[in-house]
Amino acid sequence: MIDSVFLLEGAMSVEKLQQYREQMRTELDKVVDFWQKYSHDTQYGGFFTCIGKDGKIYDELKYVWLQGRQVWMYCRLYRTMERFNKPEILEAAKSGGAFLQRFARIPNSGSPWKCAFCLTRDGKALKVQRTIFSECFYVMAMDELARVTGDKDMQAEAAQMMDQLVHWVRVDPSGLGKPQLSGDTPVCSMAVPMMLLCLVQQLTEARSGEEVDKYREVGGWCVKQILQHIQRGGTAILESVSSEGKELPGCEGRLQNPGHALEAGWFLLQYGLENGDQELQRTAVDKFMEIPFLTGWDKEHGGLLYFLDVDGYCPTQLEWSMKLWWPHCEALIAYLMAYSHTKEPVLLERFTQVYDYTFSHFSDAENGEWFGYLTQQGKVTLDFKGGPFKGFFHVPRCLYMCEKILDSILNKQES
Amino acid sequence: MIDSVFLLEGAMSVEKLQQYREQMRTELDKVVDFWQKYSHDTQYGGFFTCIGKDGKIYDELKYVWLQGRQVWMYCRLYRTMERFNKPEILEAAKSGGAFLQRFARIPNSGSPWKCAFCLTRDGKALKVQRTIFSECFYVMAMDELARVTGDKDMQAEAAQMMDQLVHWVRVDPSGLGKPQLSGDTPVCSMAVPMMLLCLVQQLTEARSGEEVDKYREVGGWCVKQILQHIQRGGTAILESVSSEGKELPGCEGRLQNPGHALEAGWFLLQYGLENGDQELQRTAVDKFMEIPFLTGWDKEHGGLLYFLDVDGYCPTQLEWSMKLWWPHCEALIAYLMAYSHTKEPVLLERFTQVYDYTFSHFSDAENGEWFGYLTQQGKVTLDFKGGPFKGFFHVPRCLYMCEKILDSILNKQES
Repeated sequence: MIDSVFLLEGAMSVEKLQQYREQMRTELDKVVDFWQKYSHDTQYGGFFTCIGKDGKIYDELKYVWLQGRQVWMYCRLYRTMERFNKPEILEAAKSGGAFLQRFARIPNSGSPWKCAFCLTRDGKALKVQRTIFSECFYVMAMDELARVTGDKDMQAEAAQMMDQLVHWVRVDPSGLGKPQLSGDTPVCSMAVPMMLLCLVQQLTEARSGEEVDKYREVGGWCVKQILQHIQRGGTAILESVSSEGKELPGCEGRLQNPGHALEAGWFLLQYGLENGDQELQRTAVDKFMEIPFLTGWDKEHGGLLYFLDVDGYCPTQLEWSMKLWWPHCEALIAYLMAYSHTKEPVLLERFTQVYDYTFSHFSDAENGEWFGYLTQQGKVTLDFKGGPFKGFFHVPRCLYMCEKILDSILNKQES
Repeated sequence: MIDSVFLLEGAMSVEKLQQYREQMRTELDKVVDFWQKYSHDTQYGGFFTCIGKDGKIYDELKYVWLQGRQVWMYCRLYRTMERFNKPEILEAAKSGGAFLQRFARIPNSGSPWKCAFCLTRDGKALKVQRTIFSECFYVMAMDELARVTGDKDMQAEAAQMMDQLVHWVRVDPSGLGKPQLSGDTPVCSMAVPMMLLCLVQQLTEARSGEEVDKYREVGGWCVKQILQHIQRGGTAILESVSSEGKELPGCEGRLQNPGHALEAGWFLLQYGLENGDQELQRTAVDKFMEIPFLTGWDKEHGGLLYFLDVDGYCPTQLEWSMKLWWPHCEALIAYLMAYSHTKEPVLLERFTQVYDYTFSHFSDAENGEWFGYLTQQGKVTLDFKGGPFKGFFHVPRCLYMCEKILDSILNKQES
C-alpha cells in the first residue's frame, strides 16, 4: 500500500524515487568497479589514488587520507550491502589496512600516533601535516576493518589513536608539531569537531559500555562546537570562529564553505536522530542545509560555489568559484536524509536540483567515475578521477547513503 | 639620428616603442599612486596588502613576503628613477623597514634568523613557513633600504641573514623546521636558486671586495642549479629536479611553471650580460624564454597558463589553467630585455603578444592597479588588487624594468 502522506504535491512520484534509487545503485556499481580495476597496488599493497580519466595511474604517491578512506568505504560496503559482501572487496580492504598499519605511522615523531600525509609507493613517509586528519582517517579505517574481521587488537589501536586525537584537540595540540607563535589565537575550524563527531559515530555504532559513554561525551562536545559556527544572528555558517564562539576578524572569519556546512548538516541530523534531539534535527536542516543553499548555489550557472565571503568580498582562495564534486555529494546526502525524516517537499526539491546538476556535470558516462573539478561555468577543468584529495570516498559514500535512504523511503511507502 | 639596424621589418616602429614606454610610465605612476593611497598603515607601520578592487582594506593581516617586497620596490624607485625620488616614498619604505625589523623575525625559533610568513596588523607572528622565502624578501628589503639610507648596520643585517640562507640551502636545512622523513629525497625546486641569484645580484650591485667575491661564488652555483632544470634533451624546463639534476618521478617531476621559467630567463640573461657569458645569454633566451612560450601560451584563449604537465597529464593544482598576472609581468620583462640585447624581431613579437593580452585583461582602467587572477577564458575571477600573494611587486617591477629597457633602446636609437 502506498502511504499517500509520502506523496508530494506536484510532479514527484514513487516512480521518480525509484528512478533515483536505480541511478544511485547503477552508479555505485560502476564506481566500485572503477576503483577495483585501477587502484589496487598488487605489488606493494594499498591503493593508487592518482588515476587519470581513463584509469591510468599518473602518479604513484599514496595519500594517507585516501588510503584510510578507501579501506573504510570497502569495509562499509562489504559489511552493510549484500551485493558487495564479496571476498575481493574484503581482501582489498585488508591489503589497504595492512599497508596503513605498516607504513602510515611516523616513528620517533614526538607523538606515538602521528601519521604521515603522503607516502611513496613502497610506504616511505614523504610529507606530514600538522593537523589531525591523517590520523582521523586511520581511525575510521581501522575501526571499520576491525568490525569486519573481528580483530580486537585493531579495534584497540583505533581507540588508542582516538584518545590521542581527543587529547590534541581538547587538551594540548603541541604534539601536532606547530610552533607556538606570539599572534596565535586559538581558531576553531569546523572541520575538527565535524571529523571527531564522525569518528564518535563510527566508534559507538551498535556498541555499548564505558568506552561508548566516554565517546558520547566527546560527541556532545563536538555538537556544541559545531553549533558555534552559526553566526550573524543565525543567518550564516562560518567555517572558523574563536574558541569563545565569536566571529574572527578578516577573511578567515568571514569564510563560508557551503559543502562543509552541508556535510556538518547531515552529521548533526544523524546525531539528533540517534539521540532523539528534535531541536538539533531542526537546526541541522534550517541552518546547516538551508543557509548553504541560499548563499552557495550559483543562480547563474548552477552548482554550489566552493567558498564565499559572508560580506560579499572576493575570497582569496583561487578556487573559490569552482564547482567541486564533494560539496555536491554532501548536498545530495543532506537533502535526501532531511527529506526522508521531515517529508518537507522543499527538501526533495533541493535534492532534485542538486541531483540534476551533479549527474549531468560530474559523472563520466564514457570512462566511469566522476570528474572532480569544474569551472564556475560547469566545464571540466581537471579531468582526473583520483588525485591528492579525491579518492574512493565522497562519491561512493554519497551513492551508498542515497541508495540506503531511498530504500528506506520506498520500503516504508511500499509496506 | 635613427639607427636603422634597430628598425624592425614590418609594422614595428620607433613610434610604437615610444607608445609602449609612455604606457609603462603612465601605468607605473598609477600603480604607485594606488599603493601610496591605500596600503600605508599609519597607525602600526608597514603595509596593508589585502586591498579590494577599489582600494578598500578587506583584511588587516600583513604578509612578510609582501612587506619586504614593497620596501624593496619603493627604495628601488626612489634610488633609480628621478620622479620617485620623493620624501614620501622614502618615508613609506622606512616605515615598512622598521616594521619588518621590529616584528618579522621570530624569537626563540631554533634559528636566529627565521622570519614569520604572516603577522597581525600590530606585528604578532601568526604563521611561519618551513621555507626560505620570507627571509629572502627581508634581505632584499634591508639591503635596498640600506643603499638608500646609508645604514651600515642594516646592510650588515641583510648580509648575516644571507649567510643563514646560503647555509640552509647548501649545508643544512634543519633550521627551517621540516621534520626528517624516511621517504625524503632532496628535491631541487627552481625557486630556491632563482631567489638566491636574485639576492646575489642585489647584494653585489655596484660593490666590490671579499664579500662580493663570496656572493659571486654563490651566484655561479645558483646558475648551475637553475640550468639543471633544462630537461628532456633541452625541450622542457621542469620546476623540480633531483639533487643530481635528474627528472623526478610523478607529477612533481613533470611540473612546468611557464611564468617561473620566464622569470629565471631574465635573471640568467642579466647575469650572463654582467659576466660577459654569451652562452648563458643564449641559453636564457632559447630555453628559458622560448620553451615557456611554446608550451605555456594558450592558443585558444590567449595568455600564459599557470602550470603544465610535460607529458600532457592534467596538473593536480586546481588553478593550473588560470591566467595570473605575475607570469605575464615576468614575460614582458624577459622578452623586452632579450630583444634589447639581441634585436631579434621574434622577441619583440612575443613582447607585443604578451603586452596586448596583459594590458587588455589585467589592467583596471576604472580603479587603477591590476587584477591578478583570470579564468582560462580571461574573465576576472578574483577581483582584489592585493592579497596574500599579490602586493606591490610584480606589477611595478615589470613596469619599472620595461620603462628602463625602453629608455635604453630608444636612447640608443635617438643618439
